[in-house]
Amino acid sequence: MKVVHYTEVPLEPVNAEGAEGAQIRWLIAQKDGAPNFALRLFELAPGGHTPHHTHDWEHEAWVVSGTGKLVTDRGEFKFAEGDAMYVDPNMMHSFHNTGDDVLKFLCIIPHEKPVVKRTLNPFADGKANDC
Amino acid sequence: MKVVHYTEVPLEPVNAEGAEGAQIRWLIAQKDGAPNFALRLFELAPGGHTPHHTHDWEHEAWVVSGTGKLVTDRGEFKFAEGDAMYVDPNMMHSFHNTGDDVLKFLCIIPHEKPVVKRTLNPFADGKANDC
Repeated sequence: MKVVHYTEVPLEPVNAEGAEGAQIRWLIAQKDGAPNFALRLFELAPGGHTPHHTHDWEHEAWVVSGTGKLVTDRGEFKFAEGDAMYVDPNMMHSFHNTGDDVLKFLCIIPHEKPVVKRTLNPFADGKANDC
Repeated sequence: MKVVHYTEVPLEPVNAEGAEGAQIRWLIAQKDGAPNFALRLFELAPGGHTPHHTHDWEHEAWVVSGTGKLVTDRGEFKFAEGDAMYVDPNMMHSFHNTGDDVLKFLCIIPHEKPVVKRTLNPFADGKANDC
């Protein structure tokens, strides 16, 4: 288990080609024993953005602070603090800081490419409210 | 894909036995096509808490606002805005609001019980910084 303030987690450059002014903190990852997915915090400088690319895994995201836009092959979508975002596998996408402050958002990814799911967690279907 | 402010997502009661003053918003779930995990926002009233229980899936969490404590079989851990939390599978745990305001935190769970992982996403190991 782990409880950590995000500022205690190293802020590292995003090395991917096409990224500008983008940094990342791996808040919870495989190194912590997390078996299925990784929780990361992105910090984008004003004007900064992630690469415009696609891959076969999804993103689930949460905007902590700042304002930006999600550019996809289905259009552009503005976002701000308190927004949740879902990006499908194989969708072209990039996150852009359109404000004057640092944009901070969480982005969760699976550890592996999607596999056929058999036994579903009954508490994950949006009907049963457990925790 | 989806971009939604959390206030636009229904706030539902947490029905699990042992929960007190706990509500939930399913921000991203299977109904949205998410293939692997669900992103939920919990809202706990002052004094409220989730059930003290255990299960064989993990939690990854992020504190949006408020203050609380995570009670586990390894002890109690205070948390506040900007903290990330990881709870291992099969660990007794509950989240408690210890402040005067509503406690809001994200909690991410897998759709299914852990399976043996074979092909790992190279961008999820905390070493390669992509997005």
